[in-house]
Amino acid sequence: MKSHYVFCVSDHTGVTVEAVAKSVLSQFPALEFSLIVLPFVDSPEKAQAAAARIAATPGALVFSTLTDPALRAVLRESCARLFDVFELIAPAVETALGQAATPSGGRTHGMTNNYESRMDAVNFSLALDDGLQPQRLDQADLILVGVSRVGKTPSALYLALQYGLRVANYPLTPDDLAHHSLPGVLLAHLPQLRALTLSAERLATIRQARYPDSRYASLQQCRDELAAAERLFARHALAVLDTTRMSVEEIAARLRHP
Amino acid sequence: MKSHYVFCVSDHTGVTVEAVAKSVLSQFPALEFSLIVLPFVDSPEKAQAAAARIAATPGALVFSTLTDPALRAVLRESCARLFDVFELIAPAVETALGQAATPSGGRTHGMTNNYESRMDAVNFSLALDDGLQPQRLDQADLILVGVSRVGKTPSALYLALQYGLRVANYPLTPDDLAHHSLPGVLLAHLPQLRALTLSAERLATIRQARYPDSRYASLQQCRDELAAAERLFARHALAVLDTTRMSVEEIAARLRHP
Repeated sequence: MKSHYVFCVSDHTGVTVEAVAKSVLSQFPALEFSLIVLPFVDSPEKAQAAAARIAATPGALVFSTLTDPALRAVLRESCARLFDVFELIAPAVETALGQAATPSGGRTHGMTNNYESRMDAVNFSLALDDGLQPQRLDQADLILVGVSRVGKTPSALYLALQYGLRVANYPLTPDDLAHHSLPGVLLAHLPQLRALTLSAERLATIRQARYPDSRYASLQQCRDELAAAERLFARHALAVLDTTRMSVEEIAARLRHP
Repeated sequence: MKSHYVFCVSDHTGVTVEAVAKSVLSQFPALEFSLIVLPFVDSPEKAQAAAARIAATPGALVFSTLTDPALRAVLRESCARLFDVFELIAPAVETALGQAATPSGGRTHGMTNNYESRMDAVNFSLALDDGLQPQRLDQADLILVGVSRVGKTPSALYLALQYGLRVANYPLTPDDLAHHSLPGVLLAHLPQLRALTLSAERLATIRQARYPDSRYASLQQCRDELAAAERLFARHALAVLDTTRMSVEEIAARLRHP
């Protein structure tokens, strides 16, 4: 199938315009798209270069979150199929607010603030990865709990990087699972606990990639550990998130808004 | 100043709609906004609940990326100041493509694919954090290099989580800096190297938070290390990214599109 070329032009990182383009284009499931992100288009020269590159790709679609009117004009002149996100959305917002927008090129927008607190959160989440430093659990916003390889570390890091949350994670070992209660160090923090689970088949696949043909990675072992973990979660009335078919964005959003 | 309440309604994680709202609202710098994200609004009941919550906040602005026409209708009926991203953008895209959109509620959109490769990348970046396992550097897509606390680890993890890149990082110790060349283990991978630097003042602040009043955190030590590192980078003609005033999104985007 012929792929449609799609340029995503931004005066900053391009994260927002790429998300918008993917989001809108997912509503055309019969078509195929190749996305090309052009970030940091923040001068007339760079806008001209972007326009020239786009002009060399006949039929390309162009999504833009450029804010500087002069740069947007450069694109408008040379791109036949341009979707200018500000032009399409800002007028409605101006009307609602009764105030004109002040388009300013290169202004930092999006999820870019709170750098310090996010870095602090990443350091915290790394320091309290995999059950390390349990004496600091009282400083955690959230504590992810589950068996080995259930996805705790990436979820914790994503929450830290994206939202600045201090997220510890604690692995339930076969030793922990043999008891009738969660480890004492966790019981002091029940409100912060978030339990993760996964289908046994997925877990076995993930463990196989790391330790092929081990008992640890066997389907039976995965089934036993997950069942024991879920019994523990039920005993303490923890809500359990099954991440089998979830992206890390979705896991993070569901942990944040339980 | 009175803050305007802004609801961001999504049938998925809400990452896209929040980014769009922040992006558009940043063009109204004189106003203050309080954002409330309502993710996973994917049933008529949840749409009704969202609409009721919004109705209880008179004057609220509402950004929505709901795709299901029935759910969008629920919002449209009860929200006076609604910015429906699909309604505002999709018609223009339909015209350009000569094809009608197929709105389907809850379809995964956005940056949610490639879960496996992204988790694999996170594990790789953690395994090769801080100079660990240099024998695996040949498997890295990128290798971040710089002095201690210059921001290598968060940047590497963000690139792994967001883009599925396998990003190692290697700290230049005072020992490394005393030599006239980069460590031999890095020289074999010059095309993958990305050098990070920072203002000495920022670096000292970051180090102070961790080791107050240490020599390591002194402004002079930071100046000396950064100057020595920059001499090494220049010797090997490495492009250097100064991250002093950058968000982690911006650092990642600039490392990806050098």
